[in-house]
Amino acid sequence: MRTTQLYAPTLRETPAEAEVISHQLMLRAGMIRKAAGGVYTYLPLAWRVLKKIEEIVREEMDNAGGQELAMPIMQPAELWHETGRWDVYGDEMFRLKDRHNRDFCLGPTHEEMITTLVRSDVRSYRQLPLMLYQIQNKYRDEIRPRFGLMRGREFIMKDLYSFDKDEEGLDISYKKMYDAYTNIFSRCGLNFRAVEADGGAIGGSNTHEFMVIAESGEAAIVYCEACDYAANVEKAELKPILAGKEAELPLEIVDTPNTKTIEAVSQYLGVDIKKNIKAVAFQNEKDEVILAFVRGDHEVNDVKLQNAVGAIVLRMASEEAILAVGGVPGFMSPIGIKGATIVVDATVMEMYNAVAGANQVDKHYKNINPKRDFKDVLVTDIRLIQVGDPCPHCGKPLKTARGIEAGQVFKLGTKYSKALKAMYLDENGREKPMVMGCYGVGVSRTMAAAIEQNFDEHGIIWPAAIAPYTVVIVPINTKDAEQMEIAEKLYEELKAAKIEVLLDDRKERAGVKFKDADLIGYPLRITVGPKAVNEGTVEIKVRRTGEAFDYTQDKYLANVQRLLATL
Amino acid sequence: MRTTQLYAPTLRETPAEAEVISHQLMLRAGMIRKAAGGVYTYLPLAWRVLKKIEEIVREEMDNAGGQELAMPIMQPAELWHETGRWDVYGDEMFRLKDRHNRDFCLGPTHEEMITTLVRSDVRSYRQLPLMLYQIQNKYRDEIRPRFGLMRGREFIMKDLYSFDKDEEGLDISYKKMYDAYTNIFSRCGLNFRAVEADGGAIGGSNTHEFMVIAESGEAAIVYCEACDYAANVEKAELKPILAGKEAELPLEIVDTPNTKTIEAVSQYLGVDIKKNIKAVAFQNEKDEVILAFVRGDHEVNDVKLQNAVGAIVLRMASEEAILAVGGVPGFMSPIGIKGATIVVDATVMEMYNAVAGANQVDKHYKNINPKRDFKDVLVTDIRLIQVGDPCPHCGKPLKTARGIEAGQVFKLGTKYSKALKAMYLDENGREKPMVMGCYGVGVSRTMAAAIEQNFDEHGIIWPAAIAPYTVVIVPINTKDAEQMEIAEKLYEELKAAKIEVLLDDRKERAGVKFKDADLIGYPLRITVGPKAVNEGTVEIKVRRTGEAFDYTQDKYLANVQRLLATL
Repeated sequence: MRTTQLYAPTLRETPAEAEVISHQLMLRAGMIRKAAGGVYTYLPLAWRVLKKIEEIVREEMDNAGGQELAMPIMQPAELWHETGRWDVYGDEMFRLKDRHNRDFCLGPTHEEMITTLVRSDVRSYRQLPLMLYQIQNKYRDEIRPRFGLMRGREFIMKDLYSFDKDEEGLDISYKKMYDAYTNIFSRCGLNFRAVEADGGAIGGSNTHEFMVIAESGEAAIVYCEACDYAANVEKAELKPILAGKEAELPLEIVDTPNTKTIEAVSQYLGVDIKKNIKAVAFQNEKDEVILAFVRGDHEVNDVKLQNAVGAIVLRMASEEAILAVGGVPGFMSPIGIKGATIVVDATVMEMYNAVAGANQVDKHYKNINPKRDFKDVLVTDIRLIQVGDPCPHCGKPLKTARGIEAGQVFKLGTKYSKALKAMYLDENGREKPMVMGCYGVGVSRTMAAAIEQNFDEHGIIWPAAIAPYTVVIVPINTKDAEQMEIAEKLYEELKAAKIEVLLDDRKERAGVKFKDADLIGYPLRITVGPKAVNEGTVEIKVRRTGEAFDYTQDKYLANVQRLLATL
Repeated sequence: MRTTQLYAPTLRETPAEAEVISHQLMLRAGMIRKAAGGVYTYLPLAWRVLKKIEEIVREEMDNAGGQELAMPIMQPAELWHETGRWDVYGDEMFRLKDRHNRDFCLGPTHEEMITTLVRSDVRSYRQLPLMLYQIQNKYRDEIRPRFGLMRGREFIMKDLYSFDKDEEGLDISYKKMYDAYTNIFSRCGLNFRAVEADGGAIGGSNTHEFMVIAESGEAAIVYCEACDYAANVEKAELKPILAGKEAELPLEIVDTPNTKTIEAVSQYLGVDIKKNIKAVAFQNEKDEVILAFVRGDHEVNDVKLQNAVGAIVLRMASEEAILAVGGVPGFMSPIGIKGATIVVDATVMEMYNAVAGANQVDKHYKNINPKRDFKDVLVTDIRLIQVGDPCPHCGKPLKTARGIEAGQVFKLGTKYSKALKAMYLDENGREKPMVMGCYGVGVSRTMAAAIEQNFDEHGIIWPAAIAPYTVVIVPINTKDAEQMEIAEKLYEELKAAKIEVLLDDRKERAGVKFKDADLIGYPLRITVGPKAVNEGTVEIKVRRTGEAFDYTQDKYLANVQRLLATL
């Protein structure tokens, strides 16, 4: 392709609307344009990147035994009524009516659609397992679409659904998809981690998120460099920390004026913060009060707490609600509470002679020994992991990072097959629900995540596997017939070698072309200048490292191929 | 691919809902399933066909200089307000609101979107011409979706938009697209004609429809086998037919009781029907009366008449309206009419001493000589073409056929660029509107049209270029280890030769597999039976002709390749 033929309108200024780097750079590089909030046009360069990601995804899905199909974007409401999700989905679902006043939605996901499809054509265990997938637009009416393609309202996803006879079959399908996802993100040239994620109400280790590591990531993750353990911070399992055993002293109440925070009371009493017990009060969707207790230097993990008490939502409790169960904000302990659910982190139970509120204003207990003093409490792991916490698998200290969720694999079990009656006859003629899994890759989000991970002050740095073009040839002076002749010769040679090459034949200053090349982020730039004419050498510049090498014209091609293999 | 791994649930019965053959066969062959009226899931076999058509379209668009991008399916209403089409489009447009109550539609087409995109980034003549295209779902809320994929509400289209400096540029872009479309339908292996179509109010020869010839086609076309002329019946240009010159006799009125039809008056007076003048009365959207006159054996072409008088709609005139302008239903001629537009077909003007109504009950004129007797009439070509009419280009008799519109190329001119202010600066710094064209291919419709053109009583007969697989290997007895070994060997050899082959490894009777192979319509079937084991020969059967050939295993591959090249 020649740049004069390419529709890639680059911008000099960073558009004010763009909050994150991928959004800024894709606008500036002429890759996307906004049509409405969270709704974008993908211009030719972005479309090339998306096609490459799609093709990698497609190959890995096919290799894993997946079959591609295409379900409608427009889905009739009836399907969603069958599972009850029409009412549950809320404002995030785009809904519309046809001219006959029938309800439809724009698919945010396709469990209902695929399950009803399969139930009508699959009857026997002989037809299982089955893995069906599609790559298409998905729709989610985000309350605040932002960050460009990171959180759009119309976005491209691959979604695969597996149907198995039983849990063992699902385990195999899940493993195939886990491996395929690992291949996908590896082949895209991305630094990523597959982390154990929160499976919500279903629980268990039945879901992994594939996180592209990037400082701008919305998710905090922990990982172990010693083993392959990695988890979403909300999910990371933690074993109780054992404190040194002490003789249990008698409980006493002490005055602690103006010590509403853990830091204040710890300082006032001259007690290590690790010997304090911190209280956090919540209310669930039924307005019931839930009191959570963790060690003074720890934080409550909302997701774990929510799962522990089976709450749909948790919000901070009101002062009235706390007082109603016998608590005093800023001075709480489990002792003396009535009518609230009390959840104590397992580490707290291992503490000796600790400090906690006395449920009276300006007073604390000393010498609390939880195993002795706490009654009717739920003990479990509810704390948030911290830097230096030990790996639950190997005990080595964990590291933290931030990630962008680009893929998720999920064991659904029989949730949808039971609700939608997707049954099959097993080897003994018994009717059983199919066991399902679902597996998503955010295709447009992966493109944005690749940029969030790979950029510098000059622009994007594409991994070669998903670059819109891998090589750009820049003739310094397009009016110089000899330079242009060499540039054209290289262009033809690279095309013949099946390298995706762009010839920047615009009559612009070299500086403008260099800036665009850096902004768009082609992995390699070949400069054809006076040296090419006089000495027969061209310069190959590596976008990622900034290194530049001079090669004679008989050697450059082999070096382009060698360098691309490393990028 | 192995059939046991392929999700292609075939049906024995023809579903009652399916009215046309493509719909019936795609349901039976396990290619599509209905999700809602006019909304379908494409199962893996259909998806493979669609991908092949898409790839052919993509290559031809790229070769013609098109650049692929992807615009949103969800379009904000504001764009459509700018052209006024939000209000004009009516119930055919799917509309929805987001959570903030903003209006959107599901794109039925993308002129507004592409024009506003281009206007914001293209400023100079140097950036033109530009051809941008996409392949994606389109939406049209048909009042009565039917015929399966032939008239769906969610369907796949390729739409390309061209932007040029001037009409000459548009002519070039239009020609490129016309040629690309010719390549597309040729490469798909379809029998088609590019016909001149009606351009509506814009007029002129600025649009062609690409018609896949099929008896079930909704459109009637005429074509010439002597030259390459072809046209939609509504569009076909006709030159006036010259009658033998006669001496003009004096006009007279004769009694013609009970002769309200042309046949009746012609019989009563003993005059050839070709010497009668037929009248048809219409009213336009303003209730104005339009009287059309054609020769007795001709029919009025509504589309031509509509264009001739610039009407938005035409309906049959009421009796009152006819009487009000001085006409008498059944006995009309232009003579004596007041307050109506009179349109006379050019052939009528060449008649001598003809018969027409006298605008009195049961009375006709004889010896009408239009050139002498008709005043204040609009003379133009308003008749419908008939079998045997001469080709307007070469004069040979025309043939008729029925066709399915699978593509259309259209010169838009400056309609959208003016409305949306898509301007550029020309070489002299003057601001001008871009000159546009739009070019559509119905991708999913082309798949259906291919079936409407290529089927028999056993099922589909795919052209090899768009077949889901080109070869199916059927081992007669999967329990016979020797047969299976040969089948597997052939399977690997064909795959290695880059032939898209399916191995029917199901433990079914051979008859069932043969039926499925015929139903789905793979171009070639290779049967591996006892002869393969005993004599080393396999049978290749050609789906289209039913011919079967035995080949030794060292010769079959070359013959597969040879046969596929002809299919």
